[in-house]
Amino acid sequence: MTDVLTSADPIVWPNGKKAAAAFTFDVDAETPLLAADPSLAQRMGLIAHQAYGPLVGVPAILKAMREVGVRGSFFVPGYTALRYAEQIRMIVADGHEIGHHGHLHEPLAGVTEAQERTFLERGLDALHKICGVTPKGYRAPIWELNWRTPALLGEAGFLYDSSLMDADYPYELAYGDQGRSLVELPINWILDDWQQFAYIPGFSGCGVIETPAKAIALFTAEFEAMRANGGLWVLTCHPFLSGRPGRVAALKGLMQHVADCDDVWLAPLEEIAEYVRSQKLTPRTLNEPNPSL
Amino acid sequence: MTDVLTSADPIVWPNGKKAAAAFTFDVDAETPLLAADPSLAQRMGLIAHQAYGPLVGVPAILKAMREVGVRGSFFVPGYTALRYAEQIRMIVADGHEIGHHGHLHEPLAGVTEAQERTFLERGLDALHKICGVTPKGYRAPIWELNWRTPALLGEAGFLYDSSLMDADYPYELAYGDQGRSLVELPINWILDDWQQFAYIPGFSGCGVIETPAKAIALFTAEFEAMRANGGLWVLTCHPFLSGRPGRVAALKGLMQHVADCDDVWLAPLEEIAEYVRSQKLTPRTLNEPNPSL
Amino acid sequence: MTDVLTSADPIVWPNGKKAAAAFTFDVDAETPLLAADPSLAQRMGLIAHQAYGPLVGVPAILKAMREVGVRGSFFVPGYTALRYAEQIRMIVADGHEIGHHGHLHEPLAGVTEAQERTFLERGLDALHKICGVTPKGYRAPIWELNWRTPALLGEAGFLYDSSLMDADYPYELAYGDQGRSLVELPINWILDDWQQFAYIPGFSGCGVIETPAKAIALFTAEFEAMRANGGLWVLTCHPFLSGRPGRVAALKGLMQHVADCDDVWLAPLEEIAEYVRSQKLTPRTLNEPNPSL
Amino acid sequence: MTDVLTSADPIVWPNGKKAAAAFTFDVDAETPLLAADPSLAQRMGLIAHQAYGPLVGVPAILKAMREVGVRGSFFVPGYTALRYAEQIRMIVADGHEIGHHGHLHEPLAGVTEAQERTFLERGLDALHKICGVTPKGYRAPIWELNWRTPALLGEAGFLYDSSLMDADYPYELAYGDQGRSLVELPINWILDDWQQFAYIPGFSGCGVIETPAKAIALFTAEFEAMRANGGLWVLTCHPFLSGRPGRVAALKGLMQHVADCDDVWLAPLEEIAEYVRSQKLTPRTLNEPNPSL
Repeated sequence: MTDVLTSADPIVWPNGKKAAAAFTFDVDAETPLLAADPSLAQRMGLIAHQAYGPLVGVPAILKAMREVGVRGSFFVPGYTALRYAEQIRMIVADGHEIGHHGHLHEPLAGVTEAQERTFLERGLDALHKICGVTPKGYRAPIWELNWRTPALLGEAGFLYDSSLMDADYPYELAYGDQGRSLVELPINWILDDWQQFAYIPGFSGCGVIETPAKAIALFTAEFEAMRANGGLWVLTCHPFLSGRPGRVAALKGLMQHVADCDDVWLAPLEEIAEYVRSQKLTPRTLNEPNPSL
Repeated sequence: MTDVLTSADPIVWPNGKKAAAAFTFDVDAETPLLAADPSLAQRMGLIAHQAYGPLVGVPAILKAMREVGVRGSFFVPGYTALRYAEQIRMIVADGHEIGHHGHLHEPLAGVTEAQERTFLERGLDALHKICGVTPKGYRAPIWELNWRTPALLGEAGFLYDSSLMDADYPYELAYGDQGRSLVELPINWILDDWQQFAYIPGFSGCGVIETPAKAIALFTAEFEAMRANGGLWVLTCHPFLSGRPGRVAALKGLMQHVADCDDVWLAPLEEIAEYVRSQKLTPRTLNEPNPSL
Repeated sequence: MTDVLTSADPIVWPNGKKAAAAFTFDVDAETPLLAADPSLAQRMGLIAHQAYGPLVGVPAILKAMREVGVRGSFFVPGYTALRYAEQIRMIVADGHEIGHHGHLHEPLAGVTEAQERTFLERGLDALHKICGVTPKGYRAPIWELNWRTPALLGEAGFLYDSSLMDADYPYELAYGDQGRSLVELPINWILDDWQQFAYIPGFSGCGVIETPAKAIALFTAEFEAMRANGGLWVLTCHPFLSGRPGRVAALKGLMQHVADCDDVWLAPLEEIAEYVRSQKLTPRTLNEPNPSL
Repeated sequence: MTDVLTSADPIVWPNGKKAAAAFTFDVDAETPLLAADPSLAQRMGLIAHQAYGPLVGVPAILKAMREVGVRGSFFVPGYTALRYAEQIRMIVADGHEIGHHGHLHEPLAGVTEAQERTFLERGLDALHKICGVTPKGYRAPIWELNWRTPALLGEAGFLYDSSLMDADYPYELAYGDQGRSLVELPINWILDDWQQFAYIPGFSGCGVIETPAKAIALFTAEFEAMRANGGLWVLTCHPFLSGRPGRVAALKGLMQHVADCDDVWLAPLEEIAEYVRSQKLTPRTLNEPNPSL
């Protein structure tokens, strides 16, 4: 325990804004299922349920964002880009950010460093091939990093990660021992539509499906408090879930509300990360705990 | 990946209607339990809970539908028809559609093609014997198709399937390589009473039982958004769940609301499928994903 | 399939009442845990949680019932009567009904007939010894009967059972082949506080704990619909759950509402069962399903 | 069964107060995960999620408590104190109580007496070393005591325990056979934020995350009923959960409401325990059940 663990400091936001917000989307499609068990590819019903995300959810969400005038961040597994190229290119065409989300949404817990590097490379290749994009941002599948992952991301040229839950403010996440760091844009389970909506029999969910109004109430309570605190509010939605009509309608209302808040800077994560980088913050360290302490 | 995956296109609905809606019921009774474990037949309590569906739920739902003046679609496993013949014939007598729902509600995941054919044949035989009906529509138990299932359904003479979750609009689902297709009338977990109400100890449900008002709020939010989008809203209820008095009362209120919407075409699924067929849509393909992509 | 399965017929209630209602309580205390795993007796925390039922919940519920002027039915495992004799005698002293609920709340699924007889005998002995009562009514632990159970109950002299979920109205449940029957007073998961409130780590519950207001809304929606239908509404609460202060307060409000409904006959189950018996209804049969049908 | 089990009697509260209340916090951080499986230390994402508690949640909660003017009780595992010394010292500096909560939040079920003693000693050592505090109160991880635990706590010099759920009022918990006792300040699952908010994939939670408003409604219903009954209302929150901005905002509102109730004595648990001790109550016994009764 050579480091003293500290919390992230508040940020001075640009242009007199008092807080920041971002609408982000993880375009998983069927990747979480295939990564867990490739034989699930044989189940047409499950695959169709997930395919709704890129095929229907993405266009519906893009339409709502155009109407409100919001730009956001879409984290796209490489596999999703290859299989649903046309839909993923629509995201780029609308001016949204494309971020890295693994290749087949591979969970990082328990994998080797070589495997992690392969996931990064395959995802980068696919996003470049399909969208002509080299993403600045990374989001770990299931938001689960290994302790070595920040260094791998930094070495691979990423500006930021958006997977950790230990802060209300963005920060510079130190890695290695030469003062290097990665911008971290923290997220939270509260601001994830999966816990509110997901039901994938035999894979995820206990069966409870909430109303759009309940989910929006949850997201909004956190937004108003983050706004008062000057923090960064990052909502994460999955097009196969939040792309359903009743949910898009509710989400659009929330987008309009956030966009109408003049004191809040609403932007894609990469713009927020670049601003954070410009602030030359002192990097923070979170070190691996020692259970025998 | 020779096919380009596309979403279903909007439909021009007949008679100037802007959207379509259907109330559908899966009359499972004890079949899901017996298919999972035949020894559950020995548990009188579980069987009585499921028997409530045809014995009490079906008559209560039929009464509500008569009072509102709604016709719907009832998917009946062959076994249910044989064991509860009198109640199933009441459905036919009231002018509702009877659809195929397997024989013993057999899950299709992992079964052989020969088994699938047997399930189809046994269900068809039972429905013909008890109701004198040859159903035009099929709904897979647990909404889980195999990739070969559409072809089997087409060969067996079905006009439509209502099991997939990849669209807001009906479409022609391509199968085989000779341009053949099946009408698909998509459904969704949001519009299923099972997730809101089911608790069958040791079989299904985590124990959360929602109020009728919460379920109706969920169904209604999706209805209003589907109505605005011009989509097809298909509600799926189970008589052993939604046939309970408090739920029938709430469901009847929703039926009245939908019936009162002059811009919505409310009909049994077979009529909607026939209309979709008349539109001569270009069939869509959803192909099996390749996890090693 | 020699029997035709039919639903229970509506009842003509006495004194011009249009429906009936009962507040019932299963005084489980620690019995469900001990029946599942006797070694749970070693866990003081779990035992204290369950002991709250007879020690605090029962007196609190009795007080609320006195204030509203309601008499109800308490199903007491024999073990609970032996361990919490003083509290169980308070129930009798207040004029409420005592029913049989097994000895150690033993689940009946998979046990032998001899075991079932032993559970009945031990429970009867304990209730007689502690309360001087020979109960007229039986409720199966977890509401799970075997097909032979009604005959065992009839032979043991019980007037009624209250464990099945296949009807909205009471009925005569046929058993054996000599025209004998048992009055059945049906219940339902909707009207059980366990699904709304129970959290017993490692034993039951997924962790969701609802507000008293939500539970009361659920119970009330079913009550109002049962009242309109002329059915029998039976609420089942567990003192270790519903005996907590916030829940007693809410339950008392519901008791007052039901008591204030002049068209509803509110009574202990044994009085309702005796009335049902006086109606000389034709017994109904529910037979064991044949999965190979 | 030589003891007669009785419930705890009502307390006469000091200064004419009619009820008592306490806001308490279990500063678990990553300890429950590490105690369950030390290899979870390798998962940066999980650790960051838990680190939010001391790093962000504690300061946010302290700020809210200062603004409302409330002092509370913080139960801190020894490990948490060692790893997050700076944050834990902030709690002491603000005048709140520090209680014992194990060393690594070790579950007590199934451990030996020697292990229990070690957990107590390690936790005491860490709290003394970091905070200079010898805690008067103990709260068992997961609220699960062994039957021998009260004696171990008494011998170790603790004044009170706050882990049992068998009463609405504080009481003297008898242990040993020489009339000794420990003050018990009972708690309940209803008044725990874990069931409302926790989602830790692969470790805890079914995925349902409630709104702050729902949790506060649940806590408030119990508060108002406890206030009317003259009981002790003890709310237990976890900074990694309730320290999130939207939840702190809601919790602060509840703190203000409780603080504004002139008839309620709001204090840290140790002050309440000392008052209870001064009342010289007759100790109660809860004995181990005998499943073969």
